[in-house]
Amino acid sequence: MSLKLYFDLMSQPSRALYILLKNIKYDFTPMPVDLRKGEHYSEDYAKINRFQKVPVIDHNGFVLTESVAILKYLSREGIIPESLYPRGNKQAARVEEFLEWQHAGLRLHCAMFFRVKVLDPLVTGRPVDNKQVEGYLRRMENALDSFDSLWLGQGHQFITGDNICVADLLAACEVEQPRMAGYDASAKYANIAGWMQRVKSHFNPHYDEGHMIVNKLIEKQRKTAAKL
Amino acid sequence: MSLKLYFDLMSQPSRALYILLKNIKYDFTPMPVDLRKGEHYSEDYAKINRFQKVPVIDHNGFVLTESVAILKYLSREGIIPESLYPRGNKQAARVEEFLEWQHAGLRLHCAMFFRVKVLDPLVTGRPVDNKQVEGYLRRMENALDSFDSLWLGQGHQFITGDNICVADLLAACEVEQPRMAGYDASAKYANIAGWMQRVKSHFNPHYDEGHMIVNKLIEKQRKTAAKL
Repeated sequence: MSLKLYFDLMSQPSRALYILLKNIKYDFTPMPVDLRKGEHYSEDYAKINRFQKVPVIDHNGFVLTESVAILKYLSREGIIPESLYPRGNKQAARVEEFLEWQHAGLRLHCAMFFRVKVLDPLVTGRPVDNKQVEGYLRRMENALDSFDSLWLGQGHQFITGDNICVADLLAACEVEQPRMAGYDASAKYANIAGWMQRVKSHFNPHYDEGHMIVNKLIEKQRKTAAKL
Repeated sequence: MSLKLYFDLMSQPSRALYILLKNIKYDFTPMPVDLRKGEHYSEDYAKINRFQKVPVIDHNGFVLTESVAILKYLSREGIIPESLYPRGNKQAARVEEFLEWQHAGLRLHCAMFFRVKVLDPLVTGRPVDNKQVEGYLRRMENALDSFDSLWLGQGHQFITGDNICVADLLAACEVEQPRMAGYDASAKYANIAGWMQRVKSHFNPHYDEGHMIVNKLIEKQRKTAAKL
């Protein structure tokens, strides 16, 4: 029995799966794919994943893309424990309600803000388009508002209740992404701030290990800014 | 035992659930929510769904949002038959791989094109911004390209193989949406054209019933255009 994880720690859902597998002490083979070097565009990688994205798993030859589909598959395989992905239909549905909501409700906006503020200017060499960034910042803050009030502001410790689950880890990894674009959601949103600490503390030391590259980049940016 | 479906036939995933329940002859209570009248913004509706969106189900008091989460829940309840949502882990994972991909891979782009070309000008009274529409058209065609080649172009009759499943119905309802903005994907993409016919034929007469309002609107637009 073997599980390979194709991932890059710069990718939010890659980090979530990496941290999760480490946290549950599941023996997997890490298969790093360096997005910054364009390794996902190679012919070899296209043979593994025709969508040329990360994360991907190869479980005894069964190759699967899409982080949320991977979480469900690993849960049904019994690899993700019931404590992190409930098996009862109603409880599972509550977790999945968030897993589906986050695609366009949270992930898209955090990812796009990072992209227009950091990634696109880096790749194209063009200066940051401040007007465009403002638009994406507004949309991201609308998304964070909803996340903070409609999910976290319901009087519970975690997204779907008082137990932590895979939804919390996936969401936390998304909320970390705009930090690399100088935006710390915890500074503005009280519910997010408290929740992030609880998620981090549950999944540590692996949470910090999975965010090592993210945190290094943020540190580097801070030092560069201090010199200016 | 009772199942209520809150829906509007102008909403793509609403149509998918409506057609599905009709197709499997499941006895449900239709609860129409008129989006054009803003009924989803009412206080009463916010009590049912704090996100103020459709579709929503109320299954014996268990209220659930997010169409993909609803599909999974109804499958585990045994309401959606195995023929439309496989129970084996690997086969289910193949269906879910698409259900997750489509959020940002297909749905977002078809919905946004319809929104900037039809909905926003209607709501705001401002003229169509052609430059903006062009950008969204380009993004939608990129998405349709991927859908046509990477999913449908794999040598099978349907999205995940030679059997139709819930993924096909959900996707078809999305691809119908830009038709209301004058864009027929079947006219440009051969795989999509053949597949749409197969999906329609499987789910008819309920497919056409679910698209009655969509088709009426398209007919009205055609007549208006003919008069100009």
